Amino acid sequence: MNIAIVGIGLIGGSIGIRLKETNFCQQIIGVEKNESNQKKALQLGLVDRILPLDEALATCKIIVLTIPVDAILTLLPALLDKVTDQVVIDMGSTKTNILNLIADHPNRGRYVAAHPMAGTEYSGPEAAIPDLFKDKMMVYVEAFKTDEDAFELADALTDQLEMKTSFMNADEHDMHTAYVSHISHLTSFALALTVLEKEKSQGRIFELAGSGFQSTVRLAKSSPEMWTPIFKQNRSNVLEVLEEHIKQLQNLYNKLDGEDYEGLHKLIKRSNKIKRIIK
Amino acid sequence: MNIAIVGIGLIGGSIGIRLKETNFCQQIIGVEKNESNQKKALQLGLVDRILPLDEALATCKIIVLTIPVDAILTLLPALLDKVTDQVVIDMGSTKTNILNLIADHPNRGRYVAAHPMAGTEYSGPEAAIPDLFKDKMMVYVEAFKTDEDAFELADALTDQLEMKTSFMNADEHDMHTAYVSHISHLTSFALALTVLEKEKSQGRIFELAGSGFQSTVRLAKSSPEMWTPIFKQNRSNVLEVLEEHIKQLQNLYNKLDGEDYEGLHKLIKRSNKIKRIIK
Repeated sequence: MNIAIVGIGLIGGSIGIRLKETNFCQQIIGVEKNESNQKKALQLGLVDRILPLDEALATCKIIVLTIPVDAILTLLPALLDKVTDQVVIDMGSTKTNILNLIADHPNRGRYVAAHPMAGTEYSGPEAAIPDLFKDKMMVYVEAFKTDEDAFELADALTDQLEMKTSFMNADEHDMHTAYVSHISHLTSFALALTVLEKEKSQGRIFELAGSGFQSTVRLAKSSPEMWTPIFKQNRSNVLEVLEEHIKQLQNLYNKLDGEDYEGLHKLIKRSNKIKRIIK
Repeated sequence: MNIAIVGIGLIGGSIGIRLKETNFCQQIIGVEKNESNQKKALQLGLVDRILPLDEALATCKIIVLTIPVDAILTLLPALLDKVTDQVVIDMGSTKTNILNLIADHPNRGRYVAAHPMAGTEYSGPEAAIPDLFKDKMMVYVEAFKTDEDAFELADALTDQLEMKTSFMNADEHDMHTAYVSHISHLTSFALALTVLEKEKSQGRIFELAGSGFQSTVRLAKSSPEMWTPIFKQNRSNVLEVLEEHIKQLQNLYNKLDGEDYEGLHKLIKRSNKIKRIIK
């Protein structure tokens, strides 16, 4: 069995590395528009060969989509038109729009909506790392609409990545990811912009940056090509959480501005409850 | 030479561990109000003995203050009254108010305003770790107002902690720390509050939380007893950066709300410049 990876960046490349380790398939075919990324992917051994999508489809049983979510929306319907017994796994970060788009497609059963909750702030083939997925969560969305054999094959691939699994509907998935992933990126982008702006007038401001700052700002290194489409596709959920987050910041601001230190202490103490959630 | 550490938590305890390793001093005396923390500090071997402050002062050459910044403000003037040839090192996170407070104290020369840019989100004696300070920055504030012998002794201690050093005036220090440390904590507190609030109505929201979320929210585990006083003492700088941060978030919100994806992409790309700063 051959597997095609469409888009060889952080996610696609890391899948390639892992599948080469496990001998899950015979060949890994890379489908990649960018010529420089094609070369890097081959040099780094992330894939065995580069082929155009149509040729990859003819020789592969599984097609994994690891391109930005807007590119998936453009590509998927035409791809499903050509699918016979192959399985198409979409690894994008948003699901509602894409699932609506192909809901009535005759080959809907060959499609698997999956979202690996794994990543780093880096992108491109050179960002690919082994064990990116190990012990992380693979979320399947509307899995019940996928043919059983197609789902089994996708799940076998998930097994190779050593991931845990979870099942959700599309609304739930997109809302939850807005709250525990997309907003984290927005806060980091905003924090970076805040501090970079101040640096212009002050200079040397980063001399004091320690591990706390690094931790909250590191996601601001994330690719705009990947993230702008995610925010676009998950717009209403992202706006909701962003509004709520601004409200919480404004509340902290008001407590400090009004010198209500008891109230400020109370809010911080309440936020400490996050200890139950993260180790 | 004996050294007293006043307040045996994350910072004080980690200094104790390190100084025991290097044999910089004979005895490390812990000064600590909280009885449970006294016991833990002795059990964990962070200090050799516990003494009341006055007795510690009588037997120690260096007094290190690692209590919350408001407690330093209360304690320091009376402590300096009693000092003869000892050196008092204040390790607090804000400096303007404390330096104003003791500016004209007859023993001003025995006081060193220092701020180790190191920490974790944990607190208390059990949070103390070796190498917390290694390769981090120790910022000296208004060091020129300290007696030369007192500064040399403080700097020798900094050497033991294997830290780099930097010099600043008080305004600069408090503004810079607001931008690269205090704001990071506020964004984390607000993010935790945002998500914890949503969990109430949604449940299971954290199932999808990955490393990105953990990274941006981990500082929300930080102690309100330590942080409320920092925000209070650095109020005007913190309000400034918080206002700017909210403005940046609102700008991202407006771009997404207005479906200006080009503008959103541009902001994210601009924030990527943080790559120059953090590895």
